Amino acid sequence: MSSAVSPLAPKSLPTLPALAGVKLATAEAGIRYAGRTDVLLANFAPGTSIAGVFTRSRCPSAPVEWCRERIGGGRIRALVVNSGNANAFTGASGRAATKLTAELAAKALGCSEDEIFLASTGVIGEPLDASKFAGVMEGLAERGAEDGWEAAARAIMTTDTFPKLATRRVELGGRTVTINGIAKGAGMIAPDMATMLAFVATDAAITPAALQAVLAAATERSFNCVTVDGDTSTSDTLLAFATGAAGNVAVSDAQDPALAGFAAAFEDLLVELAQLVARDGEGARKFVTVEVEGAESDLSARKIALSIANSPLVKTAIAGEDANWGRVVMAVGKAGEPADRDLLSIRFGDLRVAHLGARDPAYDEATASAYMKREEIVIGVDIGLGQGRARVWTCDLTEGYIAINADYRS
Amino acid sequence: MSSAVSPLAPKSLPTLPALAGVKLATAEAGIRYAGRTDVLLANFAPGTSIAGVFTRSRCPSAPVEWCRERIGGGRIRALVVNSGNANAFTGASGRAATKLTAELAAKALGCSEDEIFLASTGVIGEPLDASKFAGVMEGLAERGAEDGWEAAARAIMTTDTFPKLATRRVELGGRTVTINGIAKGAGMIAPDMATMLAFVATDAAITPAALQAVLAAATERSFNCVTVDGDTSTSDTLLAFATGAAGNVAVSDAQDPALAGFAAAFEDLLVELAQLVARDGEGARKFVTVEVEGAESDLSARKIALSIANSPLVKTAIAGEDANWGRVVMAVGKAGEPADRDLLSIRFGDLRVAHLGARDPAYDEATASAYMKREEIVIGVDIGLGQGRARVWTCDLTEGYIAINADYRS
Repeated sequence: MSSAVSPLAPKSLPTLPALAGVKLATAEAGIRYAGRTDVLLANFAPGTSIAGVFTRSRCPSAPVEWCRERIGGGRIRALVVNSGNANAFTGASGRAATKLTAELAAKALGCSEDEIFLASTGVIGEPLDASKFAGVMEGLAERGAEDGWEAAARAIMTTDTFPKLATRRVELGGRTVTINGIAKGAGMIAPDMATMLAFVATDAAITPAALQAVLAAATERSFNCVTVDGDTSTSDTLLAFATGAAGNVAVSDAQDPALAGFAAAFEDLLVELAQLVARDGEGARKFVTVEVEGAESDLSARKIALSIANSPLVKTAIAGEDANWGRVVMAVGKAGEPADRDLLSIRFGDLRVAHLGARDPAYDEATASAYMKREEIVIGVDIGLGQGRARVWTCDLTEGYIAINADYRS
Repeated sequence: MSSAVSPLAPKSLPTLPALAGVKLATAEAGIRYAGRTDVLLANFAPGTSIAGVFTRSRCPSAPVEWCRERIGGGRIRALVVNSGNANAFTGASGRAATKLTAELAAKALGCSEDEIFLASTGVIGEPLDASKFAGVMEGLAERGAEDGWEAAARAIMTTDTFPKLATRRVELGGRTVTINGIAKGAGMIAPDMATMLAFVATDAAITPAALQAVLAAATERSFNCVTVDGDTSTSDTLLAFATGAAGNVAVSDAQDPALAGFAAAFEDLLVELAQLVARDGEGARKFVTVEVEGAESDLSARKIALSIANSPLVKTAIAGEDANWGRVVMAVGKAGEPADRDLLSIRFGDLRVAHLGARDPAYDEATASAYMKREEIVIGVDIGLGQGRARVWTCDLTEGYIAINADYRS
């Protein structure tokens, strides 16, 4: 398991401002790790709206099922997150563990279990001993702080090499509102650790339905456009919370023009978090953006972009600083989406390497190779058929990924 | 580029018998490699039937398009295969190269260009200089031998570490007929080398339509069930030839019961070749069979099996000899096929590790770990929903794969 910080990590961590209506506290419950925090309690003001999107896995974790069953209520009083154990593929004992965790939090906060939301990240298939939360829950409920964001981001890390935080400020309904977000590694990025988790809170007043609409649209263009290894986790969870403490005129209609600026800032924050996740991909040495245009639809463009971003041969070529555009052709061809070889053009950055189904007449290997030595690589593909566009982010595939993931679990 | 023979290679090469009606010859045309054969001419008796299946890539190579346009004719006089250059994504020059190659072969053999079939394997995107075939084609036409199978298998290798050959004998229409087959590496298995190529010849008398039906059915259960890295080549080509020299009663109906034994032997041979391809996957140290049962359909079972066999995390766990069945759960979950977590069971060999949605009560880490040290691993999954079954073959994902594919092309 690598401990060095990713070379693609941001040079400094942003400081997230206090966010009224959310109190954050972390503790060491000893779920799996020694000497580090592994449980987070986020305590929300009564009436806080919640929205969420979850993994599409057919084998979801117990906490994912717990949240799905309650998200329709639209209100949250507390979020409990643990790292070290995903409580996934744990059968009846997993369901009992989610219930016990919610009971402990509800008792500590004096609210209903159905206002408690849960997320777990870590080993798959091992029972989660939720009784370990009993000793820390009361203290977590008392200690909450509105500015505890970095500690919260650290408590949910598994083999992430740096905490992932982002913040935005935007005008809404006559007030300046804040949006704070934290995330942890995407994909199945470590020795049987599962899960991408992301949590975004705002003090804006927004109804659950409007918040869900903003979240769903932004997710399509952010977290659904990032990949490390193409291995979808059993536990992916992205939750958004709106406390309303900013006192703006409450927004209840997702189509309300007043929401446009907020929705843009919200999406921008999710994109930043998604990119941070790709920058922390296991063994990553290069940050890669794949831009596809000219596809028959945006969805088709994204499928082609993900086919390129998930191709082991494209990712190893980037690791080897090899301007191997033939592999991009292969990845477009295998995507199964409408494409015409003789209309296809490919560029690395601004450097066009292939045009209309053949190597670019002006192609120069030395120039292309020089580009591939950069730390940030852009692969651009023009399908030449329509107006569909997509942009996805990933990292290269190195020996580091193999070394980390071939390590024995224990 | 690795030169050591795969540890999973068969201990000895089979000797293929002479096959009446096919004359094989190889030469050094100097397409890309020095000091090795890189062109094969297979010269068939007049009236030989041909059938074929090709890559589903939307960016197929020029030879694939050449063959597709002529396969309907059902007859072949000669096959020309070169290694070192795939003649893929080469635009108009690629089409000109296929035409020139066919012209040279047709002239040497005194037949029509439309009875010449072509395959190329190697670099994508570099023009193929077909004029290099001019100096060797006449000699190839004169030198053909009915027992030149191993030399033929070697001439079509790119970075394969061993030649791939298989043979069967079976009764058909009152005669004993022979089936000989050769193949080269599947998937995009080397520094921008593309292509899985396989050629199967028989002296049986079978019409093109019947041969196509036998080939298509057998391909679904053999080459379409093997993966190294999930990267589909631009050039995959599988051709079958029936010379009729055995003098059996010609079979013209694919449903003819007399064909059953032949079809079974044909499929068995394709399975052997497909497994050899997985055994020569880049960096492979373990041969992996994934068996899925209880899916809603055979097609659904194969999609789930390929999701497991293509998962970087499953493949790296196998490389690390880690009994990490949680990653198998993940791969089933992400396949997008009907599955119910709480009906799912998983076994390694005969060792049941997970049952009905949770770790098997009898699970023993030491026993599971001991199994993972084997050179040949079987992952069994019971979806528990229906009767659909599939079996696919792959290899583990090691640092060797990364090292080979991150190497610079030139």
